[in-house]
Amino acid sequence: MSTLINFFFPLVFLISSVFGVDQRPLFRDLCVAINDLKDAVLVNGKLCKDPRLVTTNDFFFSGFDEPGNTSNTFGSGRTLATIDQIPGLNGLGISLVRIDFAPKGVLPMSYLREGSQILLVLDGTLYVGFVTSDPANHLISKVLHKGDVYVLPQGFPNIIYNVDHTCNAVAIVAINNQSPDVLSSKAIFGSDPMIPIEFLTKSYKFEEKVIEAALKKWKMDES
Amino acid sequence: MSTLINFFFPLVFLISSVFGVDQRPLFRDLCVAINDLKDAVLVNGKLCKDPRLVTTNDFFFSGFDEPGNTSNTFGSGRTLATIDQIPGLNGLGISLVRIDFAPKGVLPMSYLREGSQILLVLDGTLYVGFVTSDPANHLISKVLHKGDVYVLPQGFPNIIYNVDHTCNAVAIVAINNQSPDVLSSKAIFGSDPMIPIEFLTKSYKFEEKVIEAALKKWKMDES
Amino acid sequence: MSTLINFFFPLVFLISSVFGVDQRPLFRDLCVAINDLKDAVLVNGKLCKDPRLVTTNDFFFSGFDEPGNTSNTFGSGRTLATIDQIPGLNGLGISLVRIDFAPKGVLPMSYLREGSQILLVLDGTLYVGFVTSDPANHLISKVLHKGDVYVLPQGFPNIIYNVDHTCNAVAIVAINNQSPDVLSSKAIFGSDPMIPIEFLTKSYKFEEKVIEAALKKWKMDES
Amino acid sequence: MSTLINFFFPLVFLISSVFGVDQRPLFRDLCVAINDLKDAVLVNGKLCKDPRLVTTNDFFFSGFDEPGNTSNTFGSGRTLATIDQIPGLNGLGISLVRIDFAPKGVLPMSYLREGSQILLVLDGTLYVGFVTSDPANHLISKVLHKGDVYVLPQGFPNIIYNVDHTCNAVAIVAINNQSPDVLSSKAIFGSDPMIPIEFLTKSYKFEEKVIEAALKKWKMDES
Amino acid sequence: MSTLINFFFPLVFLISSVFGVDQRPLFRDLCVAINDLKDAVLVNGKLCKDPRLVTTNDFFFSGFDEPGNTSNTFGSGRTLATIDQIPGLNGLGISLVRIDFAPKGVLPMSYLREGSQILLVLDGTLYVGFVTSDPANHLISKVLHKGDVYVLPQGFPNIIYNVDHTCNAVAIVAINNQSPDVLSSKAIFGSDPMIPIEFLTKSYKFEEKVIEAALKKWKMDES
Amino acid sequence: MSTLINFFFPLVFLISSVFGVDQRPLFRDLCVAINDLKDAVLVNGKLCKDPRLVTTNDFFFSGFDEPGNTSNTFGSGRTLATIDQIPGLNGLGISLVRIDFAPKGVLPMSYLREGSQILLVLDGTLYVGFVTSDPANHLISKVLHKGDVYVLPQGFPNIIYNVDHTCNAVAIVAINNQSPDVLSSKAIFGSDPMIPIEFLTKSYKFEEKVIEAALKKWKMDES
Repeated sequence: MSTLINFFFPLVFLISSVFGVDQRPLFRDLCVAINDLKDAVLVNGKLCKDPRLVTTNDFFFSGFDEPGNTSNTFGSGRTLATIDQIPGLNGLGISLVRIDFAPKGVLPMSYLREGSQILLVLDGTLYVGFVTSDPANHLISKVLHKGDVYVLPQGFPNIIYNVDHTCNAVAIVAINNQSPDVLSSKAIFGSDPMIPIEFLTKSYKFEEKVIEAALKKWKMDES
Repeated sequence: MSTLINFFFPLVFLISSVFGVDQRPLFRDLCVAINDLKDAVLVNGKLCKDPRLVTTNDFFFSGFDEPGNTSNTFGSGRTLATIDQIPGLNGLGISLVRIDFAPKGVLPMSYLREGSQILLVLDGTLYVGFVTSDPANHLISKVLHKGDVYVLPQGFPNIIYNVDHTCNAVAIVAINNQSPDVLSSKAIFGSDPMIPIEFLTKSYKFEEKVIEAALKKWKMDES
Repeated sequence: MSTLINFFFPLVFLISSVFGVDQRPLFRDLCVAINDLKDAVLVNGKLCKDPRLVTTNDFFFSGFDEPGNTSNTFGSGRTLATIDQIPGLNGLGISLVRIDFAPKGVLPMSYLREGSQILLVLDGTLYVGFVTSDPANHLISKVLHKGDVYVLPQGFPNIIYNVDHTCNAVAIVAINNQSPDVLSSKAIFGSDPMIPIEFLTKSYKFEEKVIEAALKKWKMDES
Repeated sequence: MSTLINFFFPLVFLISSVFGVDQRPLFRDLCVAINDLKDAVLVNGKLCKDPRLVTTNDFFFSGFDEPGNTSNTFGSGRTLATIDQIPGLNGLGISLVRIDFAPKGVLPMSYLREGSQILLVLDGTLYVGFVTSDPANHLISKVLHKGDVYVLPQGFPNIIYNVDHTCNAVAIVAINNQSPDVLSSKAIFGSDPMIPIEFLTKSYKFEEKVIEAALKKWKMDES
Repeated sequence: MSTLINFFFPLVFLISSVFGVDQRPLFRDLCVAINDLKDAVLVNGKLCKDPRLVTTNDFFFSGFDEPGNTSNTFGSGRTLATIDQIPGLNGLGISLVRIDFAPKGVLPMSYLREGSQILLVLDGTLYVGFVTSDPANHLISKVLHKGDVYVLPQGFPNIIYNVDHTCNAVAIVAINNQSPDVLSSKAIFGSDPMIPIEFLTKSYKFEEKVIEAALKKWKMDES
Repeated sequence: MSTLINFFFPLVFLISSVFGVDQRPLFRDLCVAINDLKDAVLVNGKLCKDPRLVTTNDFFFSGFDEPGNTSNTFGSGRTLATIDQIPGLNGLGISLVRIDFAPKGVLPMSYLREGSQILLVLDGTLYVGFVTSDPANHLISKVLHKGDVYVLPQGFPNIIYNVDHTCNAVAIVAINNQSPDVLSSKAIFGSDPMIPIEFLTKSYKFEEKVIEAALKKWKMDES
């Protein structure tokens, strides 16, 4: 039975603890995320990291000065600073991403399910734009240089790529979502299991053999 | 000057009007949408249709018993009941769509920018599903029959098509958005102006000539 | 002790599990509801069904092609497709209800605490309306036929009944709430315990004996 | 033409005005409500009172020290401090109401469409409670005395009345809505036009003549 | 093993329980807060107090008729009615505070992180105001008397003090937040650990020795 | 009269315009902000820039590659990319700020009324932290270097300064608010009109002459 008590102790938030823990007043205005119920307390009806275990590192992330890996089919790489890297972002609704581009590298066609973006070019020359909804489908875009800022409103397909043949490019993207979901071209041609071919063929107006070749290509690249 | 007063009269909401208008107590708990400032008053800081002009028809729409037009490339047609058809939906965050499918008809690959959907099959047999976000990209789907209900969470690519070779199909889709934006495959291949070919080629791993053919096809269908 | 570990294993989300479970990438963009902590993981700070246990049936419900039971005092019956039937609705804020009416059947006077509704008449002839707030209390209503759509904004008393003496009627109602609470006339006259009679008498301007008779009637019907 | 310019000048927010108006820096973090477009400027995409015209009185209301009028059928009276009295409440989502009760006075059965309440008894003895939603319909209530506080969650039917035969009672109610809509028993029996009798009869399980008598009574009291 | 079951039973919400507990229908439209997982059930995906354990006292608080303690440096004292005192406030977004002032007492300079306030003077004479954001920093304020109401929009520094030399004052403040965080002058000069002196000196344009004296004073008062 | 029509034409959104303007389908999923009603149309019940007048520059801002002006008392300067610079941010809830620091420069003590921040050090060495709410008032802080990221949750006092004696520093701050209000130490000591001295004295535990000196200093710097 004592094992049980030890195991559950962290679940139950004992303000006047007799176990000799930190007796300073607690803050309850932050809800740092946890992956393990062992470290959780109930604060204001939500499961949060025990405030006595919160440290400055829950709000910290380092590594945005180093280029991401662009050695892939697309010539681009993302470094994330979201809730997975920074548990203190829980409940705050913001995150940061660094995107590196090799010469002529592209971020594959994608959109965010929830979250608008504001992009800053740190270095290089990027073509950045988005397409508005049906039936207008206006492409609103611009070639950006170092120090330029562009807005990508929630949910539109994003077009972001390095138009330069010789130089790398780097962008910082801020998103008003702590855990942004991305849906890219891979969701269409690289899903698990595959989307029925007859649906893709009709939807995109490609011939069936073209779709089959594409699906095969995406599958191959993955393995 | 009197012209001016007549013109602006509706802009200014005079509760104890001297112009002999309707003197019944007003309701201010609805904000029916307007397209023309002439009919607007300021209610609770928002521009709304003058409550004295609101009628039952602001909340009404008819025509969901008639099949939509499916004589198009995709073999599907949508009938909308959104804020454009029903101005009383303003501020309420809900709308309804009827989708008709010819045999083997597809709703072209699409997603909603804002709004989750719950779909009810009124008639026929539909394949319905969605793909989750990167990198998992799980396809979650099912073949549905008359009376079946399926959920399509916000922002995922939707796969909806009639799997039957001979029968039509009809679905009702409810959306928790009064004015849902749709982004379909047309946003990718039929945008105005066109998305740069080199970006599409790299993003979708197609050969350039395949993309060019697709873009030409989409352009042709539009004209 | 090993029993304990087995019991708690699902509480703790081990991404690089050593227990041989599914190694495919996980999706974290859905939070399917659970009733039992055994199946829960912490995703983005919330308790959700373990993504490895999520199936297509979490988004599915069948039975909207069958009439609900109208053999009751009111001559109406509701079939629900809310979070209780479809756990995948969690966090999405939408649900669907089918309402069947016997000839002259009524949905007893009711309102939703949270959630606006859009109603579609599938069959029959319904009187549908709502009353706006004090002091205006306008009744906005219409007789609807097959294929007609009507909007019922959040929180107003709803009037919905079958005006036909011989035919049944069926409506589909979409609600922008995954778990809509209903408050009907039963909340007034059939509460547990009963609302003090002197309060009801004064509130509704009935004589005391009338209220007493009503309360007795409601109590009787329940048992 | 100069008339036009004068008329429209306030509509257009000229930061570096040449007309000699107040040159102090402006605040844009408040959006005080207006009833008249003449005084409006566009701030952050919203129509707000021109900040140069905002005064301390936009945030002020007096009179909560005086009893409301309880000389009516119900023996209760409300004094409001909502956006209609305090335009500075716009966008803030809070308001205050004072309710006075004669001995045995009742606030007629009512609920708020949007907004939870927290009630403080300033004087006297009140019975305060609410009924939860279908099908449970629990009545949760308590007799309160001076200095007692009770919570009335959004949208439930409220039961509030003075249980004392000789003393008045006073309560302060705070609501998290700047413009709370109330739906009371009058919405049911005193609507304009009247709700169809056959619907009321079936909904409330009263005999038709009882409903007719009630409707007549409500109509009479109004005139 | 039976110990385990007993321990976890409350975690799992068994609607048709065989353990002889209350069989009345349950309400699921309230989520009363808990501090101890033992009493929790999962309702609609959230951890809430088991509805069978909810009582009227979860919505009740008493003591607002007694003056708070003003025997401190500032001559003011607060009595709270927030989620900590009233667990039924969970999810409702409202709370109430009583503030007592000794003659010339001040509520130290403070602001709410989240939540606008509406203040009612119950007794005495208070100076009440707030400062708008940079760069305008307008002070909007007024001297209030018994029965006066004033609005304090979210996040602005509040100035509230008793301007009278001989009389006490009392105010009731409603806040649209169930658990309002306060940041006062103590956050600046009494933080743990102390804010670096060189930062304070430059920020406030004080001489270093003045800041040092202040920090010492705050530290002393605390011990 | 024709002048009137010309003037008001843009107010009214004529979809099938006869004036020869752009006939392409319109997008209604963006609501670009306007300062002048002349360019506005009503889209979905809101005042937005006429979609036909929207250009890529509504989403664009340049200049983040140039250092801000730090020649001031604090040794810091901010470059803003908010809705004032980028009208396309309207409704999106995100913005970007560049902050430059001279050696030993400070951003004066401040907080955001609405909006959490995520800060990236582009160059130099910054001390960054925040203080939690009363009564705990924990200072959570860290010395950051190039490439480091830190989170500043909504509404806490921010401490940000350059700890280096010889080098400049630069940070990019993303905020989940399109128009973030800042309240700095100037709001306390540099408000217009001044906050009553007796309140400041008691609130901050300074002697009166110290407060008077500070107020004088702030006033002087401004002129």
